[in-house]
Amino acid sequence: MFDVTRYAIAAQSIIDAGRFLYGQGWSPATSSNYSARIDAEHIAVTVSGRHKGQLAAGDVMVVDLAGKPVQSNARSSAETLLHTVLYQAFPEVGAVLHTHSVKATVLSRLLPPGEPLRLEGYELQKAFSGVETHESELTVPVFDNTQDIPALAQRTGEWFRQHPEQPGYLIRGHGLYTWGRTMADCLRHVEAFEFLFECELETMRVRR
Amino acid sequence: MFDVTRYAIAAQSIIDAGRFLYGQGWSPATSSNYSARIDAEHIAVTVSGRHKGQLAAGDVMVVDLAGKPVQSNARSSAETLLHTVLYQAFPEVGAVLHTHSVKATVLSRLLPPGEPLRLEGYELQKAFSGVETHESELTVPVFDNTQDIPALAQRTGEWFRQHPEQPGYLIRGHGLYTWGRTMADCLRHVEAFEFLFECELETMRVRR
Amino acid sequence: MFDVTRYAIAAQSIIDAGRFLYGQGWSPATSSNYSARIDAEHIAVTVSGRHKGQLAAGDVMVVDLAGKPVQSNARSSAETLLHTVLYQAFPEVGAVLHTHSVKATVLSRLLPPGEPLRLEGYELQKAFSGVETHESELTVPVFDNTQDIPALAQRTGEWFRQHPEQPGYLIRGHGLYTWGRTMADCLRHVEAFEFLFECELETMRVRR
Amino acid sequence: MFDVTRYAIAAQSIIDAGRFLYGQGWSPATSSNYSARIDAEHIAVTVSGRHKGQLAAGDVMVVDLAGKPVQSNARSSAETLLHTVLYQAFPEVGAVLHTHSVKATVLSRLLPPGEPLRLEGYELQKAFSGVETHESELTVPVFDNTQDIPALAQRTGEWFRQHPEQPGYLIRGHGLYTWGRTMADCLRHVEAFEFLFECELETMRVRR
Repeated sequence: MFDVTRYAIAAQSIIDAGRFLYGQGWSPATSSNYSARIDAEHIAVTVSGRHKGQLAAGDVMVVDLAGKPVQSNARSSAETLLHTVLYQAFPEVGAVLHTHSVKATVLSRLLPPGEPLRLEGYELQKAFSGVETHESELTVPVFDNTQDIPALAQRTGEWFRQHPEQPGYLIRGHGLYTWGRTMADCLRHVEAFEFLFECELETMRVRR
Repeated sequence: MFDVTRYAIAAQSIIDAGRFLYGQGWSPATSSNYSARIDAEHIAVTVSGRHKGQLAAGDVMVVDLAGKPVQSNARSSAETLLHTVLYQAFPEVGAVLHTHSVKATVLSRLLPPGEPLRLEGYELQKAFSGVETHESELTVPVFDNTQDIPALAQRTGEWFRQHPEQPGYLIRGHGLYTWGRTMADCLRHVEAFEFLFECELETMRVRR
Repeated sequence: MFDVTRYAIAAQSIIDAGRFLYGQGWSPATSSNYSARIDAEHIAVTVSGRHKGQLAAGDVMVVDLAGKPVQSNARSSAETLLHTVLYQAFPEVGAVLHTHSVKATVLSRLLPPGEPLRLEGYELQKAFSGVETHESELTVPVFDNTQDIPALAQRTGEWFRQHPEQPGYLIRGHGLYTWGRTMADCLRHVEAFEFLFECELETMRVRR
Repeated sequence: MFDVTRYAIAAQSIIDAGRFLYGQGWSPATSSNYSARIDAEHIAVTVSGRHKGQLAAGDVMVVDLAGKPVQSNARSSAETLLHTVLYQAFPEVGAVLHTHSVKATVLSRLLPPGEPLRLEGYELQKAFSGVETHESELTVPVFDNTQDIPALAQRTGEWFRQHPEQPGYLIRGHGLYTWGRTMADCLRHVEAFEFLFECELETMRVRR
């Protein structure tokens, strides 16, 4: 059993995040999925296939950390396990956002297979919790896309247990996953990643 | 005779779609035309030459599936037959949207004559009804532009009767046509196409 | 003497145009100037140096076709003569808009000196009054920038008396001038030009 | 002691500027910092780490020209000294804005070390106070990024005491600093710089 008020607050933070992220063009065409922690065993997560700029109360449901619906007949996002694996790995994580921007999609397809995106020398890296200087290196792993979500959940979970200081990852041709202690932290991470992706692409346009 | 309430609902869906599509920059300078099905014999369609971000009741009219005005002295879009041919070919289609974005225009001019646009490996392809995996290939034919609309209507009708699984097409230097069971499905298809066109152009900028 | 109501209507059309054009990013940093015809001898024009997204009644004044202030101590735009020469040349013109977009600025600097911008094969060319097909050629002359406005007014006036069918021109590194019978026509021309400039630049990015 | 009403007006101008600058995408992810002069000894400045699109009364504090908090327990921006050095150097300066756009970040990383950005031939250069013609040259120095703010404050202060006619500078991979007599002048300078940065990048995309 979960606290209903905590669920309502988590759901509202997801609805508000959706309006912002869709407005930025980062969650087009019913893509993306979002979640927020209710307690140690439950998270609120978007129902599959909903318009992210028009989320309403009925578009957010509760699942346990195994991804099973709780008090709901709705179907959660097909990628729910990519969320739950992060809540399992990091007890302090309060929100997980998955977005689908053009920049994240293109950049993840342009990087050589097996190579992570490496970011260095950007003041904005300090937007990520725990980063104190632009001289640190940010490593963003790129996982190949697949429709086998349990397998991808395992791969991402293993990688981040070994690299708990890294704030997100890309799926090739698909999008970004990032997280934070609060929804506000998580939204700040999305903004920072999108900024850095655009900087990298802009540089590739001019430099190559 | 058509049901007036069904007409009013169809007209409103067109007015709302116009506000969104113009706001995205996909229907500039009175370009584009939109339609929604009223019943088996009638569709609501935009009157020729109206500002798509400022559509009002008087900017939508009724035509039959031969494109003839019904209970109206207004002139429907010059491209009305490109809409009616799709409603004839696909009884389940409820809405058709034609947009004029910079991306669709430029991409359609950059592709070699006779070559379709081929899209593969994008998670967002799943936004199209019936697509289950990013590994499927999406083929978007590019028809040469012409002011002879009846001839183009015939060519597009023939092609899509043979490729009913494909969700849209481009006209070179002109724009996109896509459709769906509902206006919401059709708008999702426009968003997905625009996203994919931008991804392709962004890749061409960096890669070539 | 001019009709005050006609002045008030012209001024309002300028204020509304400014809100739109600034919102599009085409009139940044107090750049640009706009005008609308009051009658055969008078036009309403923006006062020099005002924020185009925040125009109010006090930011529009009246000048005669020689550019002299009428019933006003305000200073009209430094480029007022570039407006009046068009109203003199074309009695049917009701509005003139000068905008400063990034696209117009960059494109005008990239074109070889002495060469006009030639546009062909774009369906959107039909947005210009009198254009019936994408197969027509649109010629946009590019005049070198200067702070000698009377000289530039004479050059542009002469060119357009010889090419009355062309809807606008560029000043190198500076911006676009276009006009129309009504403010709505003129705004449609700005949108069409900006669309075509972006198409041309996007093509240059990929092609060169 | 400072005049409380003057503080309240300065704080409001900062809050309004933040809403605009964040909306333009120039202050993402809690980056940037803003200030406005209260009097000869005091300035209002943003509190460290706040969301610039959501600034409220509690997000602006008072510091003296040495950067010390006045009547406040809050921590001002880590870059406060980069603001105070300008107020010290230029008694007529009433506002300083530091923004973090993609364009400023990328352009500052693409320029060869030690080279300033040189801008010439743009009509929009006239948006900077005191510039009368597009033929003047605008020099924008690029300082290497550092977390040693006192050292950077000294370097920038020295440079601008020698070049008081120049309206701003870049920090590599970090962002823009500009200022003006009023907040409106300062915002016009930000808009003009962002316009010129975009023009330069767009040209590099096509030309190189």
